[in-house]
Amino acid sequence: MTRSQLVAEIFKKKTFLCVGLDVDVEKIPAHLLKNEHPIFEFNKAIIDATQEYCVAYKPNTAFYEQYGVEGWKAFEETVTYIKTNYPNHFIIADAKRGDIGNTSHAYAKAFFKNMDCDAVTVAPFMGCDSVQPFLEYENKWAIVLALTSNKGANDFQNKKTENENFLFEEVLKTTAKWGTDENLMFVVGATQAKMLEKIREIVPTHFLLVPGVGAQGGSLQEVVKYGFTKDCGLLVNSSRGIIYASNHNDFAAAAATEAKKIADEMASFFN
Amino acid sequence: MTRSQLVAEIFKKKTFLCVGLDVDVEKIPAHLLKNEHPIFEFNKAIIDATQEYCVAYKPNTAFYEQYGVEGWKAFEETVTYIKTNYPNHFIIADAKRGDIGNTSHAYAKAFFKNMDCDAVTVAPFMGCDSVQPFLEYENKWAIVLALTSNKGANDFQNKKTENENFLFEEVLKTTAKWGTDENLMFVVGATQAKMLEKIREIVPTHFLLVPGVGAQGGSLQEVVKYGFTKDCGLLVNSSRGIIYASNHNDFAAAAATEAKKIADEMASFFN
Repeated sequence: MTRSQLVAEIFKKKTFLCVGLDVDVEKIPAHLLKNEHPIFEFNKAIIDATQEYCVAYKPNTAFYEQYGVEGWKAFEETVTYIKTNYPNHFIIADAKRGDIGNTSHAYAKAFFKNMDCDAVTVAPFMGCDSVQPFLEYENKWAIVLALTSNKGANDFQNKKTENENFLFEEVLKTTAKWGTDENLMFVVGATQAKMLEKIREIVPTHFLLVPGVGAQGGSLQEVVKYGFTKDCGLLVNSSRGIIYASNHNDFAAAAATEAKKIADEMASFFN
Repeated sequence: MTRSQLVAEIFKKKTFLCVGLDVDVEKIPAHLLKNEHPIFEFNKAIIDATQEYCVAYKPNTAFYEQYGVEGWKAFEETVTYIKTNYPNHFIIADAKRGDIGNTSHAYAKAFFKNMDCDAVTVAPFMGCDSVQPFLEYENKWAIVLALTSNKGANDFQNKKTENENFLFEEVLKTTAKWGTDENLMFVVGATQAKMLEKIREIVPTHFLLVPGVGAQGGSLQEVVKYGFTKDCGLLVNSSRGIIYASNHNDFAAAAATEAKKIADEMASFFN
């Protein structure tokens, strides 16, 4: 998906919500477990119920890999289901991959060529040749970790470098040169919303993928205050708060209610 | 596998070779492609032929993920094959994972609980809670990226922090506190062999996983000179140089020859 297509969807629907599909069979409604493919059935119901309130879906590979081959199959089926039924939704493989060049090429092939995801999250630690292979596919995106929403962000990302910058600032400055705002986004946790002011000085036009609103405690209002641009420039993710809103028969309707709540708040920022 | 078991194997066999199982169907012998499971058949033959010359195997997940569900199945079958037939070999899932706590838990479950790998390579960028879940399994290991063998290592790892340390030194110092030399190793590329002197000052007893000997140009002699300890403390990996030594019918024998060459050189360091 191109940047202009993504921006058009956001402004048409007045939402920049991304729903995180982090499926855990211990948390999904019991009646689904009788199904042959419970993870996929759960995702399908969540997607059908929430698609009108969001512009993106973000399945995190960890939650699928933990179920081995069956999990990987559910991941692929989920991507195919979205592509087929809701082709205007942006699909992010939240994989946090990154390896030496020829190996990152294999990851890019897995997520872009085989599965047709729109974006992959990428860890920057191994540098340019670990990110570059994700930038070589037309209309595909690398979403590079800059400042994450977890406590561990303080261990390295928030440490100063010799130029008095924080490491995450170095990551933004350096990585931004490897691509453009048409194939590169950055992850910035909502728990670090005030940092968005600083971040927008470095990458004024790039899209930011913002996890951490909801379960992790980040504030949507703060994120918008410091991060919103004329093209919106934000994809705000919520996972657990939406997909586990209920674990009874009404789980899909409950997920829709939660997604709508966030989407309604988002719509107000477009006025 | 415990540290003492690993050390015992190394001293018994006088080798610290790790064979990287980075399978690419475009590079394996054509006759294997007629087989229903060419990747697994290739690995099986390589493992049988090389096991006496090495103490560890390192399949890199990227090369399996690029073949989707079939690839993931081949990864699992390969791990099971090694566990069943060569239980004294150390198995490293070269996955370079790392995510927020609850997500890293899912990755740890995938590789340790479901597949019984001995170790997973982990990216440190997201900090403590992204590494910790890999340290909670008994007799399992997190192998944290410190200084990698690729050109991109210069982008961040080799940048100075405000304390005049390189970032990779900060990673070693900080990360070493999260575990012990019984559940934590570090990746240090052979192309950076001279840095091993500095690295051994920070982590004198930890095992180091050293890729980059062979195809990437690193020197075994240099690695040993600066990195070898009284417990050996090294796992030196070679992938392409061994597994693609020939792409004809003799591929397994050719792989054995290459592995033996390295193992013979390694044996000389034990005298």
